[in-house]
Amino acid sequence: MKKKVKVYVSLKQGVLDPQGKTIESSLHSLGFKEAANVRVGKVIEFEIAESADLENQIHDMCKKLLANPVMEDYRFEVEEVVRP
Amino acid sequence: MKKKVKVYVSLKQGVLDPQGKTIESSLHSLGFKEAANVRVGKVIEFEIAESADLENQIHDMCKKLLANPVMEDYRFEVEEVVRP
Repeated sequence: MKKKVKVYVSLKQGVLDPQGKTIESSLHSLGFKEAANVRVGKVIEFEIAESADLENQIHDMCKKLLANPVMEDYRFEVEEVVRP
Repeated sequence: MKKKVKVYVSLKQGVLDPQGKTIESSLHSLGFKEAANVRVGKVIEFEIAESADLENQIHDMCKKLLANPVMEDYRFEVEEVVRP
């Protein structure tokens, strides 16, 4: 059985977000003056075979590769794979 | 009243995802051989004042800046701002 995993990686509170700052100033110059506190994160999606220790495997993937433990937080969701 | 907006930007189906491919091969070399179809997207969060045409504004922001209409799809969620 295949599972779909979505890992959400975001910068920790207090970590400067230059990309967010750039987007914020671009939004302002486009006239969207109200937009504030722009922060940018990643969503990493993948499929993987279901297994008893799947959650541990995903934590392992995040700690080893997908998220930088010093600057980033992560959370994830595991869903059924829906074939179109 | 402030609202928190989360914009999810992902590559359209069929668009090659070199970043996803790189992560996939790294996961495999770390021993996570089962991971497949790795795709990477963005989450852009920001705060904005509530307004009657907020949804139109967000669509406008996405079309003008946050998402590349040729290669990317977007969806968004609007939430209450929760002050810690």
